Amino acid sequence: MTTTSTRPDVTRLLARFRDVRSRTDRLTRDLSPEDQTPQSMMQASPAKWHRAHTTWFFEEFVLGSDPGYRPRNPAFRYLFNSYYEAVGERHPRAARGQVTRPGVDEVAAYREDVERQVADRLAAGSLDDAALDLVELGCHHEEQHQELLLMDLKHLLSGNVLQPSYVDRSPDPDPGAGPDPLRWTHLPGGLTQVGDDGRGFAFDNERPRHRVWLEDVEVAGRQVTNAEWMEFIADGGYRDPQLWLSDGWATLQATGWDAPGYWRRDEDGWTTFTLSGRRPVVAAEPVCHISYFEADAFARWAGYRLPTEQEWEAFAASGDQVRGELLDPERCHPAAAREITLGNVWEWTASAYLPYPGFETAPGAVGEYNGKFMNDQHVLRGACAITPPEHPRITYRNFFPADSRWVFSGLRLAR
Amino acid sequence: MTTTSTRPDVTRLLARFRDVRSRTDRLTRDLSPEDQTPQSMMQASPAKWHRAHTTWFFEEFVLGSDPGYRPRNPAFRYLFNSYYEAVGERHPRAARGQVTRPGVDEVAAYREDVERQVADRLAAGSLDDAALDLVELGCHHEEQHQELLLMDLKHLLSGNVLQPSYVDRSPDPDPGAGPDPLRWTHLPGGLTQVGDDGRGFAFDNERPRHRVWLEDVEVAGRQVTNAEWMEFIADGGYRDPQLWLSDGWATLQATGWDAPGYWRRDEDGWTTFTLSGRRPVVAAEPVCHISYFEADAFARWAGYRLPTEQEWEAFAASGDQVRGELLDPERCHPAAAREITLGNVWEWTASAYLPYPGFETAPGAVGEYNGKFMNDQHVLRGACAITPPEHPRITYRNFFPADSRWVFSGLRLAR
Amino acid sequence: MTTTSTRPDVTRLLARFRDVRSRTDRLTRDLSPEDQTPQSMMQASPAKWHRAHTTWFFEEFVLGSDPGYRPRNPAFRYLFNSYYEAVGERHPRAARGQVTRPGVDEVAAYREDVERQVADRLAAGSLDDAALDLVELGCHHEEQHQELLLMDLKHLLSGNVLQPSYVDRSPDPDPGAGPDPLRWTHLPGGLTQVGDDGRGFAFDNERPRHRVWLEDVEVAGRQVTNAEWMEFIADGGYRDPQLWLSDGWATLQATGWDAPGYWRRDEDGWTTFTLSGRRPVVAAEPVCHISYFEADAFARWAGYRLPTEQEWEAFAASGDQVRGELLDPERCHPAAAREITLGNVWEWTASAYLPYPGFETAPGAVGEYNGKFMNDQHVLRGACAITPPEHPRITYRNFFPADSRWVFSGLRLAR
Amino acid sequence: MTTTSTRPDVTRLLARFRDVRSRTDRLTRDLSPEDQTPQSMMQASPAKWHRAHTTWFFEEFVLGSDPGYRPRNPAFRYLFNSYYEAVGERHPRAARGQVTRPGVDEVAAYREDVERQVADRLAAGSLDDAALDLVELGCHHEEQHQELLLMDLKHLLSGNVLQPSYVDRSPDPDPGAGPDPLRWTHLPGGLTQVGDDGRGFAFDNERPRHRVWLEDVEVAGRQVTNAEWMEFIADGGYRDPQLWLSDGWATLQATGWDAPGYWRRDEDGWTTFTLSGRRPVVAAEPVCHISYFEADAFARWAGYRLPTEQEWEAFAASGDQVRGELLDPERCHPAAAREITLGNVWEWTASAYLPYPGFETAPGAVGEYNGKFMNDQHVLRGACAITPPEHPRITYRNFFPADSRWVFSGLRLAR
Repeated sequence: MTTTSTRPDVTRLLARFRDVRSRTDRLTRDLSPEDQTPQSMMQASPAKWHRAHTTWFFEEFVLGSDPGYRPRNPAFRYLFNSYYEAVGERHPRAARGQVTRPGVDEVAAYREDVERQVADRLAAGSLDDAALDLVELGCHHEEQHQELLLMDLKHLLSGNVLQPSYVDRSPDPDPGAGPDPLRWTHLPGGLTQVGDDGRGFAFDNERPRHRVWLEDVEVAGRQVTNAEWMEFIADGGYRDPQLWLSDGWATLQATGWDAPGYWRRDEDGWTTFTLSGRRPVVAAEPVCHISYFEADAFARWAGYRLPTEQEWEAFAASGDQVRGELLDPERCHPAAAREITLGNVWEWTASAYLPYPGFETAPGAVGEYNGKFMNDQHVLRGACAITPPEHPRITYRNFFPADSRWVFSGLRLAR
Repeated sequence: MTTTSTRPDVTRLLARFRDVRSRTDRLTRDLSPEDQTPQSMMQASPAKWHRAHTTWFFEEFVLGSDPGYRPRNPAFRYLFNSYYEAVGERHPRAARGQVTRPGVDEVAAYREDVERQVADRLAAGSLDDAALDLVELGCHHEEQHQELLLMDLKHLLSGNVLQPSYVDRSPDPDPGAGPDPLRWTHLPGGLTQVGDDGRGFAFDNERPRHRVWLEDVEVAGRQVTNAEWMEFIADGGYRDPQLWLSDGWATLQATGWDAPGYWRRDEDGWTTFTLSGRRPVVAAEPVCHISYFEADAFARWAGYRLPTEQEWEAFAASGDQVRGELLDPERCHPAAAREITLGNVWEWTASAYLPYPGFETAPGAVGEYNGKFMNDQHVLRGACAITPPEHPRITYRNFFPADSRWVFSGLRLAR
Repeated sequence: MTTTSTRPDVTRLLARFRDVRSRTDRLTRDLSPEDQTPQSMMQASPAKWHRAHTTWFFEEFVLGSDPGYRPRNPAFRYLFNSYYEAVGERHPRAARGQVTRPGVDEVAAYREDVERQVADRLAAGSLDDAALDLVELGCHHEEQHQELLLMDLKHLLSGNVLQPSYVDRSPDPDPGAGPDPLRWTHLPGGLTQVGDDGRGFAFDNERPRHRVWLEDVEVAGRQVTNAEWMEFIADGGYRDPQLWLSDGWATLQATGWDAPGYWRRDEDGWTTFTLSGRRPVVAAEPVCHISYFEADAFARWAGYRLPTEQEWEAFAASGDQVRGELLDPERCHPAAAREITLGNVWEWTASAYLPYPGFETAPGAVGEYNGKFMNDQHVLRGACAITPPEHPRITYRNFFPADSRWVFSGLRLAR
Repeated sequence: MTTTSTRPDVTRLLARFRDVRSRTDRLTRDLSPEDQTPQSMMQASPAKWHRAHTTWFFEEFVLGSDPGYRPRNPAFRYLFNSYYEAVGERHPRAARGQVTRPGVDEVAAYREDVERQVADRLAAGSLDDAALDLVELGCHHEEQHQELLLMDLKHLLSGNVLQPSYVDRSPDPDPGAGPDPLRWTHLPGGLTQVGDDGRGFAFDNERPRHRVWLEDVEVAGRQVTNAEWMEFIADGGYRDPQLWLSDGWATLQATGWDAPGYWRRDEDGWTTFTLSGRRPVVAAEPVCHISYFEADAFARWAGYRLPTEQEWEAFAASGDQVRGELLDPERCHPAAAREITLGNVWEWTASAYLPYPGFETAPGAVGEYNGKFMNDQHVLRGACAITPPEHPRITYRNFFPADSRWVFSGLRLAR
């Protein structure tokens, strides 16, 4: 899946493998077995499942490439395959929360066992280039699932009347910290290039690098804030059909949405659910947990639009790359809106998730990684406050259906 | 809820309270936190929830009758109320499996706390007659939930590809043990009485005792067996619309049912899932996990019919009451079909679940116990292999919707 | 289907056959092809379909009993079979409104053709007793569909923003005409008999006549009025969960019902849709278009209950049978509430629709007429303002699911 | 909506208006009132509704722009508005088939009345430029609905067991007429322009004309044929998950699709439903009634891909524009696959339906025409055998959801 043409540095890869694996352990260290078992909706998965699935990925694609390998438990292949049709039948996605056995301890043992075997083979130098590429891919895959695990956990805990905390010692934000002022970066039109340049790891969907023609555009220096979103609400933004895509308006009617995900109008004003529990909405933070429909309607209301993913990438490449809030297990929440490139909240773009010209999938089951989802989804760019710090890059293409709100998703304006 | 007109024996009640409570603890002793958390369908509940809800019942109705009582946690009133509208808002039934906190340890502490307080007040004699009646009701209520807990657990575990066991040391049934031969008891018609006679505890739906006119009927001495059910299958019973109620036939088309619940046609013949895992169907055992639709179709195929609940009660009252298999935590499965009155499997009757003439509900929230469910459900009589031994009586009215199959349900024929 | 043991009077039957058939023609005379084509919900059928289906019934069961009979169009057997599994595959019920061909003219020709052949055979005396019984059954069947046709038409027209009329010259009711005062008839308990006595036509579900034991009961002399229902609404009847069956309360939450079917709160008060268009609710008329859930909740609110169907029949048999409003094509609407036995609105009873003791279905496909629907439905007794005058009798058992409101359904109280 | 900057030729516009209107009348001339009333699915509309809605469009936007205009019937505004939120409440889309009144005669009178008034104002020169543009738009709008009317009618008739005909005298295709051989057109990459050049009418979604960078591509000279599709079926194309988008595979599982829409495997081979009734699939014709999912899977199976809409437009602009089969009311079916630019079947492209850079909607309600549907739909290019001949152009963007099959949709390959 990677484009690295030279043999990776195995020592570095082993260290990285251990780092990634131990971060997953860190993230679930304080979760009870109960917290790790249910799924709160079809799109979400139990924490225990994420821990097992990321392990299965290494077992299936790295250890399993050895014909003599005997799986730890053949049933795990059925239970912890996510969507790889070529691998065989699998447990129904909507029923992941009903798998009580193996329990968390047995999953931990499964993790250790596979981890040790992969590490042994790395250390022994017994993996060929393809397998090394798959270890690298597996690390990025596990980082994706670290973010998903936290998104899914937040969604699960939010439904509990006790509004429980995952992060114990969340520092209260400084309510006086204002966001950066809104400034615009002008990008002159012309022929440019987007996509992975082959100098580091990238997913297949970032390739090939290719030419695109862009017209003049101005892109906002920072993300839209909660304060700005409250103006949109106050101005009746959720009640004016002229602002909305037809599917968006139908979604509003069906769901009753009148504010971002997790927001609640309490006696003293808007509050939101965070991984530190419920607390007031902070005006200076970027708006988070909005659907594509809401991002699109807000931009129209504001008299602007969303950037395309090509515009976004050209913007990100045009200046210094400043990183905002990324995953800190002691925080897991965006910081005030600054002039950053990557971080805080993912940014919905105007682009549908489609293959780049000349896109090709990898051979075998791992070819199902990205390509088959290129239908009726929307591209988000950037990264968010629960994205592992090693994970993002400016060519990265995240994607979700237009009505998704459990993502840490916001927006940046263009004109 | 009881009709006892004299003050109950408090010492006996305290002992019974402790027995019932400790049986719940015994039943969940070997379940992991993971096993106790999810629910496998809307009608089922997590084991943890059953443990908390039965405790809430005592807290709400017994301790809560003291105006000075302060609840352990006000949120529990929301989380663990099942369906009592008069008590206030409650957690959505379909989302019981998503409540990860309180965890099993906190639920255990909740149980101990409420239990101690109820026991203290019983021992101190500080409960009035109404409260004592509610303790008695709470014990019967908890026994109902012991059976539900095991039904729900069986349904949950059955969906796991590992087909795990709840009972470790299940003795294999003796495949040679034949059922009792099918004999018929003739009951001459005439005026008779059904319903609770007021000499012991009964639920409100068993009252008042009243007169009914019955015609001559013959009732089978034992329940229908798996062997007989396999004949029904082999004869195309599941494929002939003439045998089925219209709603039943529609259910078959929608579900694809072609055998009782948990049955699977494996290479060596029919197997079924039990609380000891998957094992071959035993011909001599009574058929179990069938819907009302299937019971009705089988009876029509056999040339007989189901008894009404009045006929069933007259039959049960006409001879010695012989008990079959009731709850044994080391077994949890029916025994071979014998000439018994109560036990092994619940028996679908031809009767809709409706109020007896002169039925009255108790005042207050506890009046919602039974009456409001008297619509489009069907009466089952008897008891089953996971019913606590103190629980059943011949006036007992169990009830479920016609398409329910996770109940330990079978049938007895009449003509 | 009839119990007549002697050969029916063929001359009388021919006259009756012609009367019934011509009333269907009269009822659809003024309907456009457009009015006769759609169905407004799954449970309802197009007028054109009712005209064809009642014809198919005679073709299938009377003409078709002659082995040499060649059907007019084999596709009609598929299109116009309602639910007879034994007859073969049939057009999906939910798609009856999409059958544009045959059109109304071709259906009229089909009606004439089959009608002429049946009449010829009747006149020629070439039908045997079984066939004559099926002609009689077909007449009663067509009368049932005359009522269904008008119910379904009312439901269809009610959804049109133009609120169109079926009856052109509807006399306005006299708003001053009060209902009869509410008086109670006392029925002493004891052994009584209910069901068809074999002296005239009856459906299979009214048989056999059998003994039942009834306790003392008082039954109201007239039906509940709109005025009384408005008190129930004003008293918050639709907002108090304690009054409702659990399924009923869930239905209220899902539908938002807060008044009977077709009622609307307009500026000048409640209006309702009638087959003469929308007009004010008349206080003195019996309440109409209520579900079983509402009838049950009203009775509980009023401190009374619904009679069982056995009590209803005993009441109806106890005095003179006074007929209220029955089908008059120039009116099609209830009159003010009087002390009547049969008419105005069907009356929900407390009874589930179940077989009488000893019930047997007829052999062959016609045995599917009633028996297979005996599940989760509720019995209504009496007749209504769109029931053909020859159709009702006091042993008649009508039945619908508990949430049905497009029936002309009301209630009578008991205590 | 048009970009015409000079005043249109009013005489030409009046003639065009009359031509378009009379074609609608021609298309529905032989349909019975029954045929014109139902809708066969939510996405389809009754023929009567199409006739009234296209009339409403002229009434609302042309006549209604005169403040003194009094609508013929205010309810029509509610009944015949399709989706214009700014115009007010409207009849639910899924219930269009239940509107029996106004009937077809009253709709015909409505058509004549509005038509006469528009023609009078055109002839009198009393319409300003904006209104003239709206007449032009209304003509194109009605042409769109002519195609929709036939698509919807085909879907409706196809569900009838009689498999009725709309076109009476359909000439049988010559089974020996082979398709053109498959040749490829090479298009060199570079900067090019797509979109409306402002020299004639265009919809807003075709504007503005803008620059795009394309890479080298080869586009097939003709559309994929039924013969080629039968190879795909025979090769197990519908059973191999590796060929399908994830949503497409899920759609196959849910629907059971194993061939194009309307195809049926009869004793003598594949047949399909046409507007002349059911007849054998003709190998030389282009495949029709396939979803985007199927087009995409076929292209993957064949080793090629779908062109993007920009590639398609560059291809169409690169040579002579050859027209294939367009709307002929006596045929309504594709001809054998030839080297054509526009006609026979619409061609799915690889492009999502999104706004062109700089896209702007018109002010007012008519701005809802296209823009609000730019979400999760896919672009089709070209035209089909039921597209009115004046309607298509190479910048035209048609769009439907990925699972749509009642469109006359096929595909052209690229590589």
